Amino acid sequence: MTKRMTGIAASPGIAIAKAYRLQHDTFVPTPGKIENAAAETARFRQAVEAAKLELDAIREMTEQKMGAAKAEIFEAHLLLLEDPDLIDAIIENIENESTNAEYALHEVAGGFIDMLLSMDNELLRERAADVRDVSGRLMSKLRGVSYAAVSAINEPCILIAEDLTPSDTAQLNLDYVLGFVTEIGSRTSHSAIMARSLEIPAIVGAGAAAADIETGTMVIMDAVSGLVLVDPSNAELGVFQASKAAYDARRNELRKLIDQPTVSRDGHHVELAANIGSVEDLQKVLANGAEGIGLFRTEFLYMGRSALPSEEEQFQVYKHVLERMNNKPVVIRTLDIGGDKELPYMKLPAESNPFLGLRAVRLCLDRPELFRTQLRALLRASAYGNLKIMFPMIAVADELRKAKALFQEEKERLVQEGIQVSDTIEVGIMIEIPAAALAADSLAKEVDFFSIGTNDLIQYTMAADRMNENVAYLYQPCHPSILRLIRMVIQAAKQEGKWVGMCGEMAGDETAIPILLGLGLHEFSMSASSILPARALIKGLSREEWAAHTDQILSMSTQESIHTFVKEKTRSE
Amino acid sequence: MTKRMTGIAASPGIAIAKAYRLQHDTFVPTPGKIENAAAETARFRQAVEAAKLELDAIREMTEQKMGAAKAEIFEAHLLLLEDPDLIDAIIENIENESTNAEYALHEVAGGFIDMLLSMDNELLRERAADVRDVSGRLMSKLRGVSYAAVSAINEPCILIAEDLTPSDTAQLNLDYVLGFVTEIGSRTSHSAIMARSLEIPAIVGAGAAAADIETGTMVIMDAVSGLVLVDPSNAELGVFQASKAAYDARRNELRKLIDQPTVSRDGHHVELAANIGSVEDLQKVLANGAEGIGLFRTEFLYMGRSALPSEEEQFQVYKHVLERMNNKPVVIRTLDIGGDKELPYMKLPAESNPFLGLRAVRLCLDRPELFRTQLRALLRASAYGNLKIMFPMIAVADELRKAKALFQEEKERLVQEGIQVSDTIEVGIMIEIPAAALAADSLAKEVDFFSIGTNDLIQYTMAADRMNENVAYLYQPCHPSILRLIRMVIQAAKQEGKWVGMCGEMAGDETAIPILLGLGLHEFSMSASSILPARALIKGLSREEWAAHTDQILSMSTQESIHTFVKEKTRSE
Repeated sequence: MTKRMTGIAASPGIAIAKAYRLQHDTFVPTPGKIENAAAETARFRQAVEAAKLELDAIREMTEQKMGAAKAEIFEAHLLLLEDPDLIDAIIENIENESTNAEYALHEVAGGFIDMLLSMDNELLRERAADVRDVSGRLMSKLRGVSYAAVSAINEPCILIAEDLTPSDTAQLNLDYVLGFVTEIGSRTSHSAIMARSLEIPAIVGAGAAAADIETGTMVIMDAVSGLVLVDPSNAELGVFQASKAAYDARRNELRKLIDQPTVSRDGHHVELAANIGSVEDLQKVLANGAEGIGLFRTEFLYMGRSALPSEEEQFQVYKHVLERMNNKPVVIRTLDIGGDKELPYMKLPAESNPFLGLRAVRLCLDRPELFRTQLRALLRASAYGNLKIMFPMIAVADELRKAKALFQEEKERLVQEGIQVSDTIEVGIMIEIPAAALAADSLAKEVDFFSIGTNDLIQYTMAADRMNENVAYLYQPCHPSILRLIRMVIQAAKQEGKWVGMCGEMAGDETAIPILLGLGLHEFSMSASSILPARALIKGLSREEWAAHTDQILSMSTQESIHTFVKEKTRSE
Repeated sequence: MTKRMTGIAASPGIAIAKAYRLQHDTFVPTPGKIENAAAETARFRQAVEAAKLELDAIREMTEQKMGAAKAEIFEAHLLLLEDPDLIDAIIENIENESTNAEYALHEVAGGFIDMLLSMDNELLRERAADVRDVSGRLMSKLRGVSYAAVSAINEPCILIAEDLTPSDTAQLNLDYVLGFVTEIGSRTSHSAIMARSLEIPAIVGAGAAAADIETGTMVIMDAVSGLVLVDPSNAELGVFQASKAAYDARRNELRKLIDQPTVSRDGHHVELAANIGSVEDLQKVLANGAEGIGLFRTEFLYMGRSALPSEEEQFQVYKHVLERMNNKPVVIRTLDIGGDKELPYMKLPAESNPFLGLRAVRLCLDRPELFRTQLRALLRASAYGNLKIMFPMIAVADELRKAKALFQEEKERLVQEGIQVSDTIEVGIMIEIPAAALAADSLAKEVDFFSIGTNDLIQYTMAADRMNENVAYLYQPCHPSILRLIRMVIQAAKQEGKWVGMCGEMAGDETAIPILLGLGLHEFSMSASSILPARALIKGLSREEWAAHTDQILSMSTQESIHTFVKEKTRSE
C-alpha cells in the first residue's frame, strides 16, 4: 500500500521517479593511543592528498557540466585542505597527544565547526557546513570507504537523505536528480535555499519516516503541497503525472518571460522588482528576471548577533548586492527595527504596543550614531551600482527632513575625506503610515520616490495587528479605503513628477495587480517567485481599461464586491 | 517664613483665607467585658437617639440653607440609624458577647463597611462612606464628645482636614468655606468629586504636612496649580489676590454663558456637549451648561468587579442618565474594552499590540451575548429620554451591518414582549480608525450620525501609541493629515444629510476649535469644564471666515505652521 508522509515544501515542483538513498557515513571514532606518531601523521597526509585529488576531479567535472560558479565551492574545499587551522592543528594533535588520526580529525574539525557557528558574521557561520563536508571526506579517506557522493548517480531519481551537504548540492546532476526529500531541515536550511536556487523540487523536514525509503522504490513528491507518496498505486501515478505536466507547462511558459520587459497589453511598461531580506536571496532574484530590487531589508545585518554591525561590514554587503545587480536599481531600506524584535545589545525599551512605538526611522533619529553608520556604509557603496535609499515609517515631514539632513551631512563628510560617492542617489520614503499617505502631496516635493509598504499601511489604516489572528479579517488589501490611500499617493507623486513603487505583499497579489496597474503604479516589488506570474498577468492587461474602471472600483463599499468585480473582468479579458 | 506644599488640584480656583482645621475623632476602642449588658444596651440606644436628634437638626438646617437635594444625605443617615444590619447587630453583640458598646460599634460597623466595599455594585460601595460617617457620629455620642462638624464654621475660611466625609461635604456652607485642602485622597476620591460638583477650589492629597496647618493661620490655595502657601508674605498675598481676581472675573464671565446657546459671531449654531465616564459626572455636566452628552463611556459598568453587569443593572444606570438629562440628547457608546484593560472575569486573550487587537465592537461581535445584553438595556432605557447609540472602533461596513442587525433583532424581540422602546433612537458610529474616515461616504448611508474620536484616530493615523512617551511628538491633532480626514468625514456626512460630532480631546482644544468650526463640525463634545471656555471662544468666531481659511490651512505641511496661522488669525479677531 502507498505510504504517505509530509514535509516542508521548500522549493516548488512535482517529481516522479525511483528513490536514491544517499547514506552519509555516521562513523564516530574513539580515542586511542598510537605508538608511531610519525607513521600516523604520514597516513593522515596521504588521506589529505587523496581528498585533494578527488576534489580536484569533482571540481573539474562540475565545471564542465554545470559551470564555473557551481565549481567554486570545491576551490574553497581545496583551500580548506591547506588551512593550517585545520590540517596543521590535526597533525599537532596526533604528534603531541599520540592519538589516532581519526580521533584527531574528529576533535579538531568539531572544535573548528563550533567556533565558526558561534561567530557573529553570517558568512563565517556558513563556512561551518564546508568544514563538516571536508572533514567527512577526509574521514572516508582515512577509513578507506567511499565518501557518499551524489556524483555517482547516473539515472533519473529522487534523492533521499538525512540532509544534504554543500558539496552534495553543488554536485547534483540535474539531468538525473529530479528532486530531493530530506529528513531534517527547515525552509531556511542550506539544502532548502540551494533547492530554490537550483529550482528543483524539494521537501525538507519529512521526518524519520523518510529514512525507510529504499533505493529503487517508486516515489512521488509534490513539493507544492509538501506531500511524499512512496510506492504509489497506478491511479495515483496517473493523477500526479497529470499534475506534473500542468505544473511544468505553466512553468515553462513563465520561463520564457525571464528576460522580457513587463509591458501591458496596451504598451505601458512597469517595473517588476524583488524584495530581499539577505544576500542569499540574490540568486533567485536574478533567476526570475527581476528588473531590480525594490526592497532590500537590512535588518538581517543587525539580528542574531551580540553587537551592532560595523560600517565596513555593512559596506561590504551593500557593495556586493549592488555589484551583483549590475547597475539595475537597488532600493535599500534603512534599519526598520523596534520594540517587537529582540536585539538584546541595543537595550530597546519594552513597549505596550510595539507596532505603534519607537521603530524604524523613529529609533534611528533617536539614536543618530546608529543611523549615521548605516548612512555612511550606504554612501560608500553607492559608487558600485544604482543605489536608491529609502526611510521606513515616516509619518510627518519633520522626520523626513531630519533624516535627509543626517544623510547630507554624512555625504559631505565623505566627499571631504575624498571617498567616492555617487551623486545620483535617489532618496525616497516608505509610505506605510496613513498620515504620510494623506500628506503625500507635500511629502512628494521633498523626495525622489515613494514606495508603498502595504503590509503596515493596511495594519494601521485598519487598526488591526497583522500578526493577530483575532483581527485577521480586517487585513483587506483591496478594501476601498486602502485603494483610496494608494490613489492619493500615486496622484500626489505624479503631480511632482516622482515615481511610486509598492513593496508590500499586495504588489504580487493577482487580484490587486490589475487595480494597481490602472491606478498608475510604476514599480511592483515582490518575492522573486511571484515575478514571472505577475509579468504574465500584466502582459494580458490593458492599463487604459483598468484606469477607466478605477472610479467605479473605489466607490464600492467592501473588498468583497471589489474582488468579485476584478475576477469577472479578468476572466472576460 | 512661608511654608509651601503641593497636592492634587482636584477642583480649580484660588482661595485666600484663614485655615479652619477639622479634626475627626481618631479614637479606637479596646475590647472590654461589661457586667450589665442591659445597662450597656440602654446606653447605646440613648446614643442612637441623640444622633438622630442631631442629624434631624442638621437635615433641617441644610434643607433651609442649601436646598432639599443637599439635605437628602441626612435622610439616608437617619435610615441607617434604624437599619437592623447595623443597630440590631450592635445590640446583639453587646448582649451576646458582654462587650462594651464602643467596641461593639467599632466591630460591627467595620465589618459592614468591609462588606460594602467588597460589592460589585458601585452605589453600594459608596454607601460605605455613609456608614463610616454615621458610626463616627454614634461613637462621639457614646463618648460624650462633639462630632467634628463643618456646620460649626461661621466665618470665611479654608477648610483643612485629613479627608472629608459625605456629611462634611453636604454641610459645607459655601458662604464661609472658600475651599479645602485634604491630606489624603486622589482626583477621584469622594471629596474631590464633591468639590468639582460644588465648584469650590480643592487640593487633595497634600500630604501629612497639611496636618500641621493650625486653625487661624493665613493660607493661600491655588487649586489651578495645586499649590498651598501657609503664612504667606504680603508680597505673596498681593500676587495671589491679583491672580484670584483675574481667575474669578474670567469665571464669572463664563458663568453668564451657562444657559446661552452656542452661536458663532456670524449666527451659526453648534452644539456643545459633554463626555462622561460615570454617573457622578452628571452634576458637572448640568452645572456647565452642556447641551447634551456627546459621549457616555460605559466601561465603568464592567470594570473593578468580578462578573459582567446584568441587563437590569445597566438599564437602571442608562435610565437614570437619560432622565437626569431631561430630553437633551445623550449619546451612549457601547462597550469599548479590550486586551489593554484588565477584566479578569472575561478572560481576554493577551495581545502583542492590544491597541490593534480585539477591542470594542470587534470584541462585542465576537461575543454577541455580551453585546446583546447591553443593547437590550439601552433599548429599554430609550423610553426615558433622547437616546442615541454609537458603536466604537468600526473599521469596515461589514462590522456596522452586523452590529445593526443585532440591535434590530433585540429591538424586535423587546417590542414583541410588549416592552416600551423608543422608535426614534439614532444609531451612529465612532470614526476613530483611518479606514472608516476614508470610507465615510459609503458608511454615511448606513448611519444616523458620526462622532469623530480623535484620540484614537490620531493614534492610528500616525501609527503612534498615545500612551508611549517615546513617540509623543507624533500626537498632532492639527496635523494636515488629521484635518484632511476630518474634512472627508464632515463632507461625506453632509452629502447624506447626517450630522457629525467630535468626542476626542481635540473638540475642546482652543487651537482646533476655529478650524473645526470652519470645517462645519456640528457637535463638539468635551470634558464639562471645557464647555464654557469653548462657548466663549465660538461666540467670537465667524464660521464663514474660518470656512474660507480651510483650503489654505489644509494645504500646509506641518502642524506647527497651522498653529501659527490659527494663533495669528484669532489674535486679530
